[in-house]
Amino acid sequence: MKALREPFKLACIQFEPVIGELDGNLKAMEDHIRTAASEGAALVILPELADSGYVFSGKEELAALAQPIPSGRSAQLLISLACELKIHIVSGLAERDGDDFYNSAILCGPDGHIGQYRKLHLWDMENPLFTPGNLGLPVFDTQLGKLGLAVCYDGWFPELFRSMALAGAELICVPTNWVPMPGQLEGVEVMANTLHRAAAHSNGIFIACADRVGTERGQPFLGRSLVIGPNGWTLAGPASADREETLFAEINLAEVQTSRDLNIHNNIVGDRRQDVYGDPKTSSGPTPSSHRKETA
Amino acid sequence: MKALREPFKLACIQFEPVIGELDGNLKAMEDHIRTAASEGAALVILPELADSGYVFSGKEELAALAQPIPSGRSAQLLISLACELKIHIVSGLAERDGDDFYNSAILCGPDGHIGQYRKLHLWDMENPLFTPGNLGLPVFDTQLGKLGLAVCYDGWFPELFRSMALAGAELICVPTNWVPMPGQLEGVEVMANTLHRAAAHSNGIFIACADRVGTERGQPFLGRSLVIGPNGWTLAGPASADREETLFAEINLAEVQTSRDLNIHNNIVGDRRQDVYGDPKTSSGPTPSSHRKETA
Repeated sequence: MKALREPFKLACIQFEPVIGELDGNLKAMEDHIRTAASEGAALVILPELADSGYVFSGKEELAALAQPIPSGRSAQLLISLACELKIHIVSGLAERDGDDFYNSAILCGPDGHIGQYRKLHLWDMENPLFTPGNLGLPVFDTQLGKLGLAVCYDGWFPELFRSMALAGAELICVPTNWVPMPGQLEGVEVMANTLHRAAAHSNGIFIACADRVGTERGQPFLGRSLVIGPNGWTLAGPASADREETLFAEINLAEVQTSRDLNIHNNIVGDRRQDVYGDPKTSSGPTPSSHRKETA
Repeated sequence: MKALREPFKLACIQFEPVIGELDGNLKAMEDHIRTAASEGAALVILPELADSGYVFSGKEELAALAQPIPSGRSAQLLISLACELKIHIVSGLAERDGDDFYNSAILCGPDGHIGQYRKLHLWDMENPLFTPGNLGLPVFDTQLGKLGLAVCYDGWFPELFRSMALAGAELICVPTNWVPMPGQLEGVEVMANTLHRAAAHSNGIFIACADRVGTERGQPFLGRSLVIGPNGWTLAGPASADREETLFAEINLAEVQTSRDLNIHNNIVGDRRQDVYGDPKTSSGPTPSSHRKETA
C-alpha cells in the first residue's frame, strides 16, 4: 500500500483493563477509541492484553478469554471501528489459535484487518500460559507509513528494534503492561522509558508505547506511556504512573530519514560495522517455530 | 589470566586535555592516575584521545602527536604507571601505525601492556583523519575480570555491547569525548548517558564512561561521566557538565550473573530469540579490514 507520507495524529490510550471482564474492557476500548478519533487521531494504540486483563489465575481463565484473530469478537470490534472511523488501530489482545495461546498485537485500518504480531519474549508467568511468538518481526506497509509492532518485554532486546528498522519500519507501536524493574529509584525515569528512547535514537525511528495502569491481583503496573521521536526525545508523555489518560502526538515520518544524518559524515543507521558484528536477520513473515520454551 | 573475582574500586577521570599539549596532558594524566590509585582505585579510566586533545587542525597536527602502541611515549608512561602502582589503566590515545592513525584505547595492568582497541565508528571530522578500527571487539581476560573497550560514538550501536557481552565481557570501559546531540533539552539526561544505561540493562553488564570537559576550538564537550551497574542504574555520577572530577565506584562483577535473572522465568541474555534475529558476530582478534570509509 502506498504511503501517503503526510503527518498524522497518533493517540496512546493509557487505561486500566480488568482481568476477566471482556465486556467491560471492550466497552472501555471502544469509548477510548471513539474519543481519540473524534479528536483527530489517525492511529490509536491500546495496551497489551487490553481485552482480557493480564494476571490470569491459570490456563483455564486465559482459555475462556482468548479468541482467534481476526475472527474473534475482540478483533472484529476493532476492525469494525477502524473501518467506521477510517483510522488505524493497534491493540494487545489475548489470541487463541487452536490449542495455542499468544500474547498478540493486532493492526487494523480503514480497509480492515492488516495483520498481527505475536510477542516473541514472554515475561515471567506468561511463560507457562502462552506460546512464544512465531510470526517473526513483520513490518506492515500501511497508508500511514511502515509500522512495526512489539509488546512489553520485547523492548528489552535491542535486536528487535534494529531488525524492524532495517526492514524499513518508521514507527514501532508498543502495546505494553510494564512492571517495575529491580532497583528502580524514586524520581528516576523508569527503565522501560529509557530503553525505548535509546532504541528510537539508535535506529532513528518513532516509538509509541501505550501502557496500562492499576494493580491487578497484587501486580502493579507502571503507566508512563510515551511517544518518542527519531532523535530519542519524548514527543508526548511520559504519562502519569496511575491515571487513565490519552497521549496525543503529531507524527511526521519524513523525519525518520532526516534525523539519521547526524552530520555530514555520519548516518546512525548507515554507520553500522556489519563487517564486525553482522546484521540481525530480518523477517516479514512466519519463522520456523523451533523456539519453544520449556514451561516449568 | 584467572580472574580473582573480588570487588574492586574503579575510577573514571573526567578532565580537560589540551589540543597539542602532549607534555601537559601526560603530566595531568599521571597526576590523576596517581591520585586515584592512592585512593584505592584498582582500575583507572581516562577519556578519549587523552594525550593529544580532540579537535585537530588537520592530519599534520595529528601526525605530530600520534604514537605507536605500545612502543610510543604515551603508552609507555601508562604501562610504567600500571606496573608501578599495580593497577589497571584504560585510556584513549592517538595511535600511529605506519601511515595509519587510529582513535584507540589502551589497556594495561600490573604486568604491562594487555592490548588495545581501535574505535570502530568514527565521528564527524575524525573520518578524514583516522582509519576505522580493524581489531574487532576484543574482550580481555584480566585479573579484575573480563573487560571490553569502546570509544564514544561506538556507544550509539547496540550491537557493540551485545557482541562483547556474548563474548563474556563483564565491564565495558569507555574513554569518550561526548558532544551535544540534536534536540537535547535542558534538564533532561544527556542521550549518551541514556544509551549506556540502556546497554548496561539490556546486557546485564557494568559500563564505565570517562568523558572530557571544556570547549576546544569551538567544540563543546558534555562531561557527565558515569559508572553504570548491570541493572542499568547509575552507581556513580553523572559527573558535572564542566568540571574536572574523578568518579569512584565499587565494582562487584559477580553481580553480572545474578542481575541477569529478572525472575524465575527470565534471563535477559538467555531470552534472546536468535531464531528470529540471529546473534551478532563476536571477535576477540583482528578482523579483515574490508571496511574503510571514503573520506570526503
